[in-house]
Amino acid sequence: MALIVQKYGGTSVGSLALIHNVAAQVARVHARGDGIVVVASAMGDETDRLLDLARALIPHPEPRELDALLATGEQVSVALLAMVLCSMDIPARSYTGAQVRVRTSAVHGKARIEGIDTERLRADLQAGRVPVVAGFQGVSEHGDITTIGRGGSDTTAVALAVALKADECQILTDVDGVFTTDPRMVPQARCLARVSFEEMLELAGQGSKVLHLRAVEFARKYNMPLRVASAFRRGAGTLICEEESTVEAPVVSGIAFNRDEAEFSIFGLPDEPGTAYRLLKPVSDANIEVDMIVISASPQGRSDLSFTVHRDDYVQTKRIIEAILKGFPESTLEATDRVAKLSVVGVGMRSHAGVAARLFETMAREAINVRLVSTSEIKISLLVEEEKLERAVRALHTTYALSVQD
Amino acid sequence: MALIVQKYGGTSVGSLALIHNVAAQVARVHARGDGIVVVASAMGDETDRLLDLARALIPHPEPRELDALLATGEQVSVALLAMVLCSMDIPARSYTGAQVRVRTSAVHGKARIEGIDTERLRADLQAGRVPVVAGFQGVSEHGDITTIGRGGSDTTAVALAVALKADECQILTDVDGVFTTDPRMVPQARCLARVSFEEMLELAGQGSKVLHLRAVEFARKYNMPLRVASAFRRGAGTLICEEESTVEAPVVSGIAFNRDEAEFSIFGLPDEPGTAYRLLKPVSDANIEVDMIVISASPQGRSDLSFTVHRDDYVQTKRIIEAILKGFPESTLEATDRVAKLSVVGVGMRSHAGVAARLFETMAREAINVRLVSTSEIKISLLVEEEKLERAVRALHTTYALSVQD
Repeated sequence: MALIVQKYGGTSVGSLALIHNVAAQVARVHARGDGIVVVASAMGDETDRLLDLARALIPHPEPRELDALLATGEQVSVALLAMVLCSMDIPARSYTGAQVRVRTSAVHGKARIEGIDTERLRADLQAGRVPVVAGFQGVSEHGDITTIGRGGSDTTAVALAVALKADECQILTDVDGVFTTDPRMVPQARCLARVSFEEMLELAGQGSKVLHLRAVEFARKYNMPLRVASAFRRGAGTLICEEESTVEAPVVSGIAFNRDEAEFSIFGLPDEPGTAYRLLKPVSDANIEVDMIVISASPQGRSDLSFTVHRDDYVQTKRIIEAILKGFPESTLEATDRVAKLSVVGVGMRSHAGVAARLFETMAREAINVRLVSTSEIKISLLVEEEKLERAVRALHTTYALSVQD
Repeated sequence: MALIVQKYGGTSVGSLALIHNVAAQVARVHARGDGIVVVASAMGDETDRLLDLARALIPHPEPRELDALLATGEQVSVALLAMVLCSMDIPARSYTGAQVRVRTSAVHGKARIEGIDTERLRADLQAGRVPVVAGFQGVSEHGDITTIGRGGSDTTAVALAVALKADECQILTDVDGVFTTDPRMVPQARCLARVSFEEMLELAGQGSKVLHLRAVEFARKYNMPLRVASAFRRGAGTLICEEESTVEAPVVSGIAFNRDEAEFSIFGLPDEPGTAYRLLKPVSDANIEVDMIVISASPQGRSDLSFTVHRDDYVQTKRIIEAILKGFPESTLEATDRVAKLSVVGVGMRSHAGVAARLFETMAREAINVRLVSTSEIKISLLVEEEKLERAVRALHTTYALSVQD
């Protein structure tokens, strides 16, 4: 008898008909005799609706109270889902994060899960019942309701799977699995049967919206096999697990991309220690996350600095940098929010040379200017003009033989 | 420094503007240095919306899950109200029934409050904070979310006031207080400054919608002064407390009425023990509440039985009674759902004769047929044709000098 944790996201429980669909899926697992714990998110746009309600009332709601408000979204979902299961003669019980108890830090809005009491869930499982747990929420040591941040239901599911020593944590969603790249951009994109935690971390970090980075990190830390599959269609989906040394990994597993980039390039800075710090510290002090950073030498003992931020932070970052550059009269700034990042990811890069060379060859053939490059052990990221992104992704998808027909 | 528990009902928190209004009222109490605990219901029709959601999914939702679902309604209200208070620099904290803890029996949908832990609330009050508690809900000894039945927020407020030994429990609502009768029917109706628990129990039991019977019973049991006042307008409202022997009570305090009655009269039943039981037991077995019951002798050793039920139960009751009457071939049935009940209530009746005589005199003068009568120590109830109700109430309001100008 296996023990499975299944997580259904907001789009999977977005309507009453869909809740019936989820119940039918849960019933299948229950019928084959496996233990199952279900984690559900709030229905569709419910979290946004509640957030709008609070913000219509006051611009900056107290975080403790905002958490108490938002937590009702998942409570509604799990109660409805448990009702339907009960009506199918499947003994189900809904639980809030506080009931389970999902113990978290007291940082409202982005609490961290510190532990999960499994006593009640184990009793349910032993009695053949199906616990249906509200994702995204927990309880602080003071008994206050907390939320663990957007997309936190994935993390709740993994944390539950780890605490219960489940055999697998399944994230059931509106895609069939993890693809070589976004199938909306490249119709030939292929669903990967298996991907390593490391690759998934790079893909999630580089813009693949399938899974939350935090949930993947959590799963890797405890070596909990994660499966991403469709909540609507049958199919094995993608298994995310430890890299298997016996199987030769493909050189490149997938291509992630992210359109929400803005680029700042400052030319002719003095080539001396602390210059980058003087420029980037005020940006990070403004709570703006800097993504790619490239520093390169330029003639006459000067250097150039380029970095990217989220496009939403473009205007504020520009203001900050322009103010600082008054102290560097010889430097010039070029800034644009019309750039996109793409990342080629694959554990096979570790043992294969030539991945970068083929990448630049492809970009040259397509006449796409590579504005910035940054690399990690299993990833190469490029910044290109936004209008060239689609062509770049398609060309690289072919270069690395990722398509279905290859 | 006084300690006040204030309860705001669904219409008082029915919109974002109204939540600001409630916050302003709470702020006034807080500003004068009194301790205050707020109890709030779900916003407007939220409970009905959630109920509809569940019933659209399945006809008979599991009671445990329905409670988990419905409890979100009050959780939303208290979180929003606490947010607004915080934004006004009033340190407020919302609590669910489970957080407080409002301990209840495990009978989902109509749990009984067994006790309230006051530790956390007392700590808040001592620190000058305002606890905002979700009404209508609690937690069973197994940690399950329970609800205590419709209108239960009044009961939550009284239970909290009793547990905290508050000076007064205030029910802030959409009326100015308890009136001599419904002002929509009798424009001269007067708001009572003070009414005894017993009178309020009779008024609430006889159709006055201002307060829930259960909350009044609870308050009387623990002698907790209850005040009903407007959530929207200034005014002292009505204080409900123990009868004061020093003050001479008015003979009649008020007239309650209830249109939702259906009457069954069975004539020519055998006048022998057990007949009423044979007729009424199947009705109560069908969970139909029988209200007034009158048995009277008729000629030739036979007797007549009349009783009333809620109008919604008319059809089902008729079916039950007709089936039983097949065993009583000599009896005849008259049934109607076009009747209404009115009740004249006043503790002064105990020491004043002639209340009933003046009542029948008034009915005779107005040519209104009294179909049934039942009496208690401080109440006389009449059943009349529904179309005569309004005339009867107005005439009696004048007879007992209840109007403003009297």
